[in-house]
Amino acid sequence: MLGASGYAGRELCSLIQRHDGLSLAFATANSQRGETVELPRGGRVTFVGTNEVRLDAAALVFSALPHGTSAEWVARARAAGVRVVDLSADLRIGNGASDGIPYGLTELRREQIRSAECVANPGCYPTSALLALAPLFEQGLIASGAQVNISAASGVTGAGLSPRLDLLFGEVTENFRAYGVENAHRHLNEMRALTTEYGADVDLLFTPHLLPVARGILSTITVPLARPLTDLLDPWRTRYAGERFIEIEQALPELRQVTHRNVVRIAVRQVGGVRTPTIQLFSAIDNLMKGAAGQALQNANLMLGLPEATGLPA
Amino acid sequence: MLGASGYAGRELCSLIQRHDGLSLAFATANSQRGETVELPRGGRVTFVGTNEVRLDAAALVFSALPHGTSAEWVARARAAGVRVVDLSADLRIGNGASDGIPYGLTELRREQIRSAECVANPGCYPTSALLALAPLFEQGLIASGAQVNISAASGVTGAGLSPRLDLLFGEVTENFRAYGVENAHRHLNEMRALTTEYGADVDLLFTPHLLPVARGILSTITVPLARPLTDLLDPWRTRYAGERFIEIEQALPELRQVTHRNVVRIAVRQVGGVRTPTIQLFSAIDNLMKGAAGQALQNANLMLGLPEATGLPA
Amino acid sequence: MLGASGYAGRELCSLIQRHDGLSLAFATANSQRGETVELPRGGRVTFVGTNEVRLDAAALVFSALPHGTSAEWVARARAAGVRVVDLSADLRIGNGASDGIPYGLTELRREQIRSAECVANPGCYPTSALLALAPLFEQGLIASGAQVNISAASGVTGAGLSPRLDLLFGEVTENFRAYGVENAHRHLNEMRALTTEYGADVDLLFTPHLLPVARGILSTITVPLARPLTDLLDPWRTRYAGERFIEIEQALPELRQVTHRNVVRIAVRQVGGVRTPTIQLFSAIDNLMKGAAGQALQNANLMLGLPEATGLPA
Amino acid sequence: MLGASGYAGRELCSLIQRHDGLSLAFATANSQRGETVELPRGGRVTFVGTNEVRLDAAALVFSALPHGTSAEWVARARAAGVRVVDLSADLRIGNGASDGIPYGLTELRREQIRSAECVANPGCYPTSALLALAPLFEQGLIASGAQVNISAASGVTGAGLSPRLDLLFGEVTENFRAYGVENAHRHLNEMRALTTEYGADVDLLFTPHLLPVARGILSTITVPLARPLTDLLDPWRTRYAGERFIEIEQALPELRQVTHRNVVRIAVRQVGGVRTPTIQLFSAIDNLMKGAAGQALQNANLMLGLPEATGLPA
Repeated sequence: MLGASGYAGRELCSLIQRHDGLSLAFATANSQRGETVELPRGGRVTFVGTNEVRLDAAALVFSALPHGTSAEWVARARAAGVRVVDLSADLRIGNGASDGIPYGLTELRREQIRSAECVANPGCYPTSALLALAPLFEQGLIASGAQVNISAASGVTGAGLSPRLDLLFGEVTENFRAYGVENAHRHLNEMRALTTEYGADVDLLFTPHLLPVARGILSTITVPLARPLTDLLDPWRTRYAGERFIEIEQALPELRQVTHRNVVRIAVRQVGGVRTPTIQLFSAIDNLMKGAAGQALQNANLMLGLPEATGLPA
Repeated sequence: MLGASGYAGRELCSLIQRHDGLSLAFATANSQRGETVELPRGGRVTFVGTNEVRLDAAALVFSALPHGTSAEWVARARAAGVRVVDLSADLRIGNGASDGIPYGLTELRREQIRSAECVANPGCYPTSALLALAPLFEQGLIASGAQVNISAASGVTGAGLSPRLDLLFGEVTENFRAYGVENAHRHLNEMRALTTEYGADVDLLFTPHLLPVARGILSTITVPLARPLTDLLDPWRTRYAGERFIEIEQALPELRQVTHRNVVRIAVRQVGGVRTPTIQLFSAIDNLMKGAAGQALQNANLMLGLPEATGLPA
Repeated sequence: MLGASGYAGRELCSLIQRHDGLSLAFATANSQRGETVELPRGGRVTFVGTNEVRLDAAALVFSALPHGTSAEWVARARAAGVRVVDLSADLRIGNGASDGIPYGLTELRREQIRSAECVANPGCYPTSALLALAPLFEQGLIASGAQVNISAASGVTGAGLSPRLDLLFGEVTENFRAYGVENAHRHLNEMRALTTEYGADVDLLFTPHLLPVARGILSTITVPLARPLTDLLDPWRTRYAGERFIEIEQALPELRQVTHRNVVRIAVRQVGGVRTPTIQLFSAIDNLMKGAAGQALQNANLMLGLPEATGLPA
Repeated sequence: MLGASGYAGRELCSLIQRHDGLSLAFATANSQRGETVELPRGGRVTFVGTNEVRLDAAALVFSALPHGTSAEWVARARAAGVRVVDLSADLRIGNGASDGIPYGLTELRREQIRSAECVANPGCYPTSALLALAPLFEQGLIASGAQVNISAASGVTGAGLSPRLDLLFGEVTENFRAYGVENAHRHLNEMRALTTEYGADVDLLFTPHLLPVARGILSTITVPLARPLTDLLDPWRTRYAGERFIEIEQALPELRQVTHRNVVRIAVRQVGGVRTPTIQLFSAIDNLMKGAAGQALQNANLMLGLPEATGLPA
C-alpha cells in the first residue's frame, strides 16, 4: 500500500492485516518512514519510504497518495504489471483521464471492476450521494431540468490526518459549519460526471458541512421527480436486491448505524412538493469504510477473484 | 417566569438575574417544586409551583410552559392585567389564534411588539430561517413557485431537558441524523404562515437534523431567485442596517460564533443554478438565546420601554 | 440471554450472533417485550419477556438482569440444570454469596471458571483495577499498610441505558465530574474482597469520574511498593505471558486503543515517592467488552470447552 | 498584550475589550501579523508584530509569549517603566528568578500583587491544585511526610492553539489518556515550590490527563491529614470567607459549573483512610479563566487600583 499513513491508509492496512486471503506486502509513508504506528482494531505497521519498495512485490497495489502525486505512482505500478486501486481523485471521472479505468462504485460497475487493471476508487461524498441517486438516474425518474440538492455532513477524518488548526478538537467540538466551495468542486465534478454518463438533465447542488464526529457522512438529498413513486422504496429495493453492502430502510439512517461497517444505508421520504412530486433521500456511510478503505478492498476482492465480502465488516 | 425548569427557562432566569432593569419575581416548575438548581453563569433559583404564584406580582410574565398548557396560563395572566411573552408554540402564527398577538421576530415586528400586551415568541428553527429569508420575501426576490429548501441542524438542547433514551450522551455522541417529519410540522406551519403573510408564492421544504452539540442551529437554505443579485449581501445589509443582533458576514458562519450570544449570523453564496439564479443562505443562531430566551428578553425590553439590548450578550 | 436490552446486553447479543460456535436462543427484556432493535455491528434482535422463555432451551444462560433481580433467575437457571454467567453484581465477591461461584476475572481464575456451573462476571471498574494490581498482590510487592489510590474515569455507557437527566448529551458534553461515593461502594467492596483474598494489607481508595465519551475506562492507580522494581514491567510481563487479551506496553494507554476490543492495556510509571518507592499503573479497558460482555463471553467459551478467544475482537 | 494569538491570549483580549476601565492598546502575534481574528464573545482584534509596538503605549502589559521567550520581553517592558503580568512560566516560582515578582495566585498573594511592578501569573494546573491545598498548608493540617496525590484532567485548550496531530478532533474525541511526565515537570516544580514556601513536608505526586472537552480542569487530590477535621469544609470556608471567586460547595464540582467563569470551585470528601484520616479535594476551574486570562486580569485590576472583579464573569 502506497501512502498509508493517513486515516484511510491506516484503515486499509488494518483491513488487509485481518483479511483471510491477503497479506500486507508493504506500507509506505515518506513523512513517517521508519515509524511503527498502531492501527485501528489493534494491529501495527512500520512505514517504509515510497521509493524503497518494489511495486511488483505485491499482486495489487493500493495508493492513498495525495491527489496530484498518486497518478504518477499508479502509472509506475501499471508499467510494472501490477494491478492498482487508486484512492486518490487523480483518475476519477470528472477529475482526470479515465480511459479503461472504471469508476469504483462497486455496486454500479461490478463487471468492469472485475476485469480492470486499475480502478479509481470514488470519493466519500460522491459514494454516499451517487449510490442513493443511481436508481433514479437509471430509471429516468428525476424531473427534467430539476435542481437536485445534496446537503451533506461529514466527520473530521474526511479532512485527513493533517495538522490544521481548524481541525483541532478545541475548534471542532460543539461546532458545526458549512465549508469550502473550493473543496467542494472536486467532489462535485465527480458527481456531475456520473450524472452526465447517465444522461440525466439535472443541476446538481452540493453543500458539505463539518460535523463534530470522527467518522461518517450523512447526505440529505432533495429530488424533484418526473412522476410520483407508487412505492417509495421500490426503485432502490429493486435495483439493489441481493446487495450485501446496501441497506434500504424505512427508518431514517443514523451515522452510528454505519460507522465501522462497509455499507451504505438509504431511506426515502416524500416531502412538500406542491407543484412537483419531490422526495428526500437520506444516505449514510462511514467515510473511511464504504467511503474509502472498505470500498477499495471490496474492489480489490473483485479484481483478485476473491469473494467480494472477504475481510469487510458489514 | 412560568415553566422555568427547562433549558430555555433556566437560560431566561439567568439572563433576568443579571439584567440591570429587571428582577426575577418567581420561577415556577411543578415537577421540581421546592428544588434549588444552578443556572448558567453561576446563579441559582428555587422553583415554586405554578399554582402558588400571584401572576400580578410581576410586571411581565414569561411562559415557557409546554405547548398546549401555556395558552391557558397566558390567558390568566392577561386577565390579571399582566403583559406576557409566551415562549410556547400555542399563540404563534400558523399554530394558534393570534389576534393582536404579534409574532415576536423582533427585527421584523418591532413596533407591534413595543405596544403589545402579549407576544408569541418564535420557535428556534423558524427564527434562524425567517430572519435570513425575510429580506427576500419583502423585496420579492424569490422565483415565483420556487422550492425553498431549508436543511437545518440543531444541538440537543433544542429537544428540551427531558429524560429520553435517544437524547442520552451515549446515543448522540459520534452520531448525526435527520428526524421527525412529525415534529417538523409545528415549525413548518410557523414558517409557512409568515411566508403567506408576505404573499410569497413559494414551496417551503424543511428538514431538521440532530447534531452532537449542546447548543446552536445552522440552517442552510437554497433559494431560486426571481433575478440575479448584483450585490450578494445587499438585501440583508440594507434591510438590517443598524441592527445590533444581526450579523451579515462574508465568511460562512459557525455555531461557535453565535453560541451564548443573542445574535443571528447570516452569509450568502451563489450556487449552481444553471437555469435559475440560485443562492444559499447560511444562518446560525444559539437556539437558547436568539432562538428562545434571548429573543424573549429582547421582546420584553421593548414592551417595558427599556433599551432593547439590556441584559443581552451580543 | 436474560435482561438483554441494556448496553452490555446488546453488546453481548451482537457478539453471540457473530460467534462461530454459539447462537442466540433468546433475548429477554420485559420493558421492551416484542420490540426489535438494532445491535452494534449491524444485527438485530427481538426481545421476549423473561417469563416467556424456557431457560433450558439454552446450553448456557447469560444474565444481565438488574442487580437484586438477577440472583433469583440465576437460581432458576441452575435449578433447571443450565450453566450461567451472571453479569450482575449479585453473586460477586464482596457483594453476595459466592460458594463455588468463581469470580470471573478470566486471567486470574481460569481453571475454576472452566469447570464452574456458574460464574460471577466482574464489574467494569474492578476489572480494570484488579487485572493491573493482581501481579503486585500475588508477588507481595505492595508496601504493607499502604494506601492504594485508584482514580478512574468511565464513559457514560457504564451507567447503563436509562433515561436519567444527568446522562443527557446536553449535560455530559464538555463536562467532567467525580461522582457517587454511594455507587462506588459496590465496586469498592468487590475490589476489597479480592484484595483480602490475596491477603494484602492495603487500604484501597477508589474515586470514579464520568467522562464525556461513550465507552472506556481508564484507571490511574498509585501504589507504594514494598521494594523498588528492577524492571518496571517485569511483574506484569511475567504474570501475563501468553495472555491474548492483556497488553503490557511502554506507552501510556489511551481509551481508543482498547474500545471495541476485549483487552486490558496496562502501563507502569515510576513516580515521586521520596520516602517510599511508588509507581503508577495505567489500565484501560472497554467497559462493555473486557468490562462486561466480552469477558462474559470469554468465560462462557471456557465453560463450554470452546477456544477462549472465539468471537472476541482483540 | 504580547503574544495574543493563542487561546489564553484571545480570551484575555476579549475580556479587556469588554472591561469598563481598560482598553486594548495593542495585541501582538508575530505568526499572525496583520490578521484580524474573531474573539470569544464576539469582538475582533488585528494582530501586529511584537517588534512594532511601543511597550510604554500601555499602562500595563500582559505577556502570553511562549515559555523561554517571555522573560526577555518582560524585562524590556519593565525597563520602559511599564508594569507587567506575565502569563508564561518564565518567572514563576520553581521555574525562574522571582525576586520581588509575586506568584499571582490572587487570593494567596493579594497584598504583594497590589504593589508589584511585575506578577508571574500561575499555571492552570497549579491554580486548581494550590488554591485547594493552601488552607491545609497554612493550618498545618497535612500529615507530615505524606504523599499528596494530585490526579488532574484538563481540556485541550490547555495544550494551546498549535497544529499537533494528537490534538486533532479525530484523535481526541471518544478518547482519554494520561500524558507526559515531561510536561508535568513545569507544573510540578511550581507546585512543589509553593509547598516548600509553606514549609510543608509532603511528597507531591501529579498526573495530568487529557479530556475530550475544550475547557476546564478538574483536580482530584488525595490528602492524608495530621488530624481528622471536625467540620469538613471549615478550613476552606474560614480561609476564603468573602472571596468572590472561590466557591466552597457540598456537592462535587463539575466542569460546566466553572467554564467561562473566573472561579475555582472546591468540595471535600472524607475517604477510606483506615490508618490515617484522609480526605479528597475536588477542585474545578476554567483553565482559560481562573487558570490563565481571568486571573491575569484579576491581578491587573489589583495592580492598577481598580475593583478586583471588574470585567470578570463570576
